[in-house]
This record gives sequence, C-alpha cells and structure tokens, in this order.
Amino acid sequence: MDISTLKFDDNGLIPAIAQDLEGRVLMMAWMTEATLRQTLDTGRMTYWSRSRQEVWVKGDTSGDHQIVKAGYYDCDGDALLFVVDQQGKGACHTGEYSCFYRRLDEPDAQAQ
Amino acid sequence: MDISTLKFDDNGLIPAIAQDLEGRVLMMAWMTEATLRQTLDTGRMTYWSRSRQEVWVKGDTSGDHQIVKAGYYDCDGDALLFVVDQQGKGACHTGEYSCFYRRLDEPDAQAQ
Repeated sequence: MDISTLKFDDNGLIPAIAQDLEGRVLMMAWMTEATLRQTLDTGRMTYWSRSRQEVWVKGDTSGDHQIVKAGYYDCDGDALLFVVDQQGKGACHTGEYSCFYRRLDEPDAQAQ
Repeated sequence: MDISTLKFDDNGLIPAIAQDLEGRVLMMAWMTEATLRQTLDTGRMTYWSRSRQEVWVKGDTSGDHQIVKAGYYDCDGDALLFVVDQQGKGACHTGEYSCFYRRLDEPDAQAQ
C-alpha cells in the first residue's frame, strides 16, 4: 500500500502496536512516516521517541530488538499493528516482558 | 490504581487497544477519563469518538459489544490494553472481524 496515504496526526505521528508471535501485546509507541519506512526496510521496529524527539530503533541500546514478521494498518488508516519476534528479555524498559504488566483494577501500582 | 494519574493527551484522550480472548488485536481507539470510568463501571468498552465528538459505547448501534475481561495500563501510563469478549460479527465497521485486516506490504488495499 501507499504509506503516504496513512493518516498521521498533527505531529506527523501514527500509533504502532507491537504484538509477539503468541499474541501478547508488548507495547504501543509512535512512528513517523520515515521511521515506518525504516521499519519496513530494515525489518526492525523503529519508533519515534516523543520524549527524546529522535529516531528510536527498538533494542539498539538494550539489545531487545523487535524483528518484524507482519505489519497491518487499520480500517481508517490511522493505526498500525505489527507482529514481531521479540528479542532479549522483553519489550519494557522496566525489565517486564510487556509494557502492559499492571491491571487497572489493582490498587497498589503507580505509573512510572 | 488511581485513574486520574494516567497521562491523557492535550485533548484529554488516551489510546485504548482491544484484544480478543485468543490474542487477536481487534482495534485501537481513544478514551477520555470519563469513558474509561464508564468502561470499568459497565464492563463494556466505551470509547470517545473523535469524529463524532461523543461517547461511543461500542456495539450500541451494531450489537457488536465488547465485554471487558481485563484491563491494563502501560509502564508510562499513557496507553491502555483491554482483553475483551467480542460479541456479534466482529469489531470493524467494514464487517471484518478485526480493524487490522490489511497488510502494509500488500499493494492493492487503500485506507477507507
């Protein structure tokens, strides 16, 4: 498909969900058109870090790369889903395998 | 957890991913703090429609409700993941089961 027809937001970003080969959702982050193209060209999940305002090849510092197995876009072209082979210990900077490791109905956890 | 500590964006929205009981990612949409509370209170996925600017109880018009089985928030508190029991034919307004039914590497599909 023509990537330029996807709907990037006012900041030029589109949400990208990464899911592992067993269906576990690992994380949600953001891509620019350029990092999406880089992701597809290299086969490694490449996000745009909103906090650092820079290209973020997932795993380049941690070793926990995400190897792209399939990429999808949604019905209205404003969200992406990737099935990835998660390398290393997992996706989360906390050391957890998935970033979604805390339940909304548990009272003690706090956002980090 | 204290929902008010989640990070809603400048429009008061947080992305919410819905995944079915088998791990299939169905859709990504947006919630306000109020629709998140409504989701947890009612057990039915309740989004905020950005296009219609109104509360969107998924399935109230289509019958394809999403019954919440578990809800998670991510490490930095700015994204949500729900495991849902998808009712009816599926999640997508196109009639597809998942909104992510088209691959980025297929040439013919277009965003709707």
